[in-house]
Amino acid sequence: MAGFDVHLDAELTRRPFDQALGHAADLATGQVLHGLGGVDGTVAEAMRYAVAGGKGLRAFLVIESARLHGILDAHAAPCAGAIEALHAYSLIHDDLPSMDDDDLRRGQPTVHVKWDEATAILAGDALQTLAFELLAHAGCPDAARVALIAGLAGAAGVRGMVGGQAMDIAAETASQPLTLEQISVLQAGKTGALIEWAATAGPVMAGADAGPLRRYARDLGLAFQIVDDILDVEGDVATVGKAVGKDAGAGKATFVSLLGLEQAKARAGALVDSACDALTPYGDDAETLRDAARFVIARKS
Amino acid sequence: MAGFDVHLDAELTRRPFDQALGHAADLATGQVLHGLGGVDGTVAEAMRYAVAGGKGLRAFLVIESARLHGILDAHAAPCAGAIEALHAYSLIHDDLPSMDDDDLRRGQPTVHVKWDEATAILAGDALQTLAFELLAHAGCPDAARVALIAGLAGAAGVRGMVGGQAMDIAAETASQPLTLEQISVLQAGKTGALIEWAATAGPVMAGADAGPLRRYARDLGLAFQIVDDILDVEGDVATVGKAVGKDAGAGKATFVSLLGLEQAKARAGALVDSACDALTPYGDDAETLRDAARFVIARKS
Repeated sequence: MAGFDVHLDAELTRRPFDQALGHAADLATGQVLHGLGGVDGTVAEAMRYAVAGGKGLRAFLVIESARLHGILDAHAAPCAGAIEALHAYSLIHDDLPSMDDDDLRRGQPTVHVKWDEATAILAGDALQTLAFELLAHAGCPDAARVALIAGLAGAAGVRGMVGGQAMDIAAETASQPLTLEQISVLQAGKTGALIEWAATAGPVMAGADAGPLRRYARDLGLAFQIVDDILDVEGDVATVGKAVGKDAGAGKATFVSLLGLEQAKARAGALVDSACDALTPYGDDAETLRDAARFVIARKS
Repeated sequence: MAGFDVHLDAELTRRPFDQALGHAADLATGQVLHGLGGVDGTVAEAMRYAVAGGKGLRAFLVIESARLHGILDAHAAPCAGAIEALHAYSLIHDDLPSMDDDDLRRGQPTVHVKWDEATAILAGDALQTLAFELLAHAGCPDAARVALIAGLAGAAGVRGMVGGQAMDIAAETASQPLTLEQISVLQAGKTGALIEWAATAGPVMAGADAGPLRRYARDLGLAFQIVDDILDVEGDVATVGKAVGKDAGAGKATFVSLLGLEQAKARAGALVDSACDALTPYGDDAETLRDAARFVIARKS
């Protein structure tokens, strides 16, 4: 396969954040639709439905981190599709009645509500599979593909996302609420690991140092989750697009319940500043990623 | 990584089928346990439980097909672990109440019965992830690893195993039973695709022609499923280790209901002969794989 050379051409110039987000989401959705090809039936339909609703933040991180390393969107697009497919799978399964039991996601019925539980389980299963299938076709050398796959598996598995979700479920029946440190570990697995994978996909594809983007991603991921907890308290269901007030109602420990609303907001703000600082080696080229970090605390959904 | 050279040494000599099966199952379980490392908690425990009960037929196919191409067991072991992890994930999810709703598997309580549904969903999810993680560490060049990963994703996803399971569930509420051709397509996805991946893992690792082993696997996979349908009619629950008589009780079309018991047995026998013939290019070296094919129709569970 040709085309792994670095092209710092017009396509790699900076775009505004919202435009870049929409562009990345479109690239990711396109990859998933292409990966599903002409497959019909309920499960494939549910897979398309689940991916189409995504904002594309993780795809955006992939595409922007790739640009910073001179990788064209077309070469990074399979990675953007993979992370959105993986994320969609995790949401479908988390929403199931035996897990978080949510009826609404991004303002739409969740997959098991729109179809049924069997369809939701299978659609999630096949979206996870599709994520790894797309990575096997990423536009980079085989060694980088293997590194992307090993990295995503580590981030998604029992040491990462699934481990975080298992801790979350266990906490619901635990005798005492989680501590701040335990919640931080839980969220690093449940949300942080995939964000970190996405933001470091560019240097991994390029075989470059992933350190600065890893630091950016860790701060961003934690800020993102703190804001989620703030939205659960302050948001309204129409804007947020999913049920709110669930955590407080369930007496669940969150960053807000442990830190208080004001200190949680201050912590999120400090993390965003730190995330932006981590990008210093990239200079102005990383300004769109800094905009994304600022958006994370300004968002309403 | 070193050690990809062909070593036709003592380790690659022929062993009896039952011994080879046990050896492959042990290798696969070892890989899964190693992959899980010291992770504790309910989900990791459920993952170990689900993999430990396996007979290891798919791992055996991996190890034997690798031997035929001069690949040492230690190099093929991650592939054996991957296919057993993937198979275990599929069984855990298939057994869920919203899917086949089975309480018993290999003579033991299914994962959602022993723990709960959330644990079963997460353990299955993380076993699928682990399968791809193990393949990223297979003892072969990166190009072969990528081919193994792309192949397993194709076999497991909506065009393969998940697609077959979706057809199976849809058939339960369809107005008329499936035809022989439809059942063959369903089983090629649900069971056949993973068996084919396993039996061709050796040539894929070696970058060799997978044709003969692919033909062997297609015949073997179909014979395997016909025998499953025969056992559902003729077997008893204690020997088979899972519920029997379910398909007939549900008025479900099976190879037995469509062909009749005697013709189903004759078809399975002919497929096994054909599977053995496909191995002719390997001569006597493939005798253990021929034994496996003969075992498939002689088995009682």
